[in-house]
Amino acid sequence: MNTRLFTFSGGEAGAWRVVRMETIAGDPLPSAAKLDIFPGSISQQPHGAKWLLRGITSNDRYVTHDEKNQLVAKQPGLGRPEATCAALIPIRKNASWWSLSQDERRMIFEEQSKHIHIGLQYLPAIARRLHHCRDLGESEPFDFLTWFEFAPSNEAAFNKLVAELRASREWTYVDREIDIRLAREPA
Amino acid sequence: MNTRLFTFSGGEAGAWRVVRMETIAGDPLPSAAKLDIFPGSISQQPHGAKWLLRGITSNDRYVTHDEKNQLVAKQPGLGRPEATCAALIPIRKNASWWSLSQDERRMIFEEQSKHIHIGLQYLPAIARRLHHCRDLGESEPFDFLTWFEFAPSNEAAFNKLVAELRASREWTYVDREIDIRLAREPA
Repeated sequence: MNTRLFTFSGGEAGAWRVVRMETIAGDPLPSAAKLDIFPGSISQQPHGAKWLLRGITSNDRYVTHDEKNQLVAKQPGLGRPEATCAALIPIRKNASWWSLSQDERRMIFEEQSKHIHIGLQYLPAIARRLHHCRDLGESEPFDFLTWFEFAPSNEAAFNKLVAELRASREWTYVDREIDIRLAREPA
Repeated sequence: MNTRLFTFSGGEAGAWRVVRMETIAGDPLPSAAKLDIFPGSISQQPHGAKWLLRGITSNDRYVTHDEKNQLVAKQPGLGRPEATCAALIPIRKNASWWSLSQDERRMIFEEQSKHIHIGLQYLPAIARRLHHCRDLGESEPFDFLTWFEFAPSNEAAFNKLVAELRASREWTYVDREIDIRLAREPA
């Protein structure tokens, strides 16, 4: 079964240890020691969970055919044994962003902010899965949850990637962002 | 409160009488005599409900700035007293559509199929609200629910509108479609 929906649970249990949580913009999330990832929805809140965030993978919103081919050729899968570092970065964009037309959003996203171009520079070092939340319901706390995995030797590169994106015009529309860094627990 | 999520209930009760239900493609829906529309989710299935369909309004996916201005200038609101006819048209698109890149989908949607251009020809006669379902969850039966309202004198125009869209290249990607026609019940 090809799952599109994922639930991220922050609390006392999970396959990933929270190394740090940094609130970049907007309201923080309660701190958590561990993070677990469940395919689909979960009917019962895990014991000790401080928060649950849900997101669903979906069709591409901005990439062109050529950009998609470049991404597909370079992007690694999740779960590489050496990728023992991860980041979960929930973000929300403001109402101005969502009221823009598609061509205006694409112009800011890529022609001005180089979101895809920047991301390509960090492939195949950084694996990524984007989850959409905004259209799961009316009261979702975030619009996107992006999950990243990388080897410890690529942590500096990952820091540079997020710094470049945060300096972009696109990020002037981000009104809530939490940067959660994780390390895989020994099996 | 500005509701984005709506639930459509087909069954024995509701403000709209079902005039006919026609399965254009894919599996049919059980027949229903009445249709009701609820803002948000509903916690209890209405008595006699045969089906519930949920959808959420969202940001524009294809329109450009200029097209959006034309639409905003011409499109009427829902609930006009003379608009006693309505249609609910749930559709699903196939996996090939969703695997296309954004520029490929836009090319088919507008440059080839003239979806926005065709719709503009029927404004302000036909009022419309588009609801997205695909990213509400993993097991939604449809990708979109479009709700239309028009006066009885514009029914022929509405039939022409849907015929033009169904003849387009975009519609070769539609693998399920139900055309539900309705008349407002006297208050």
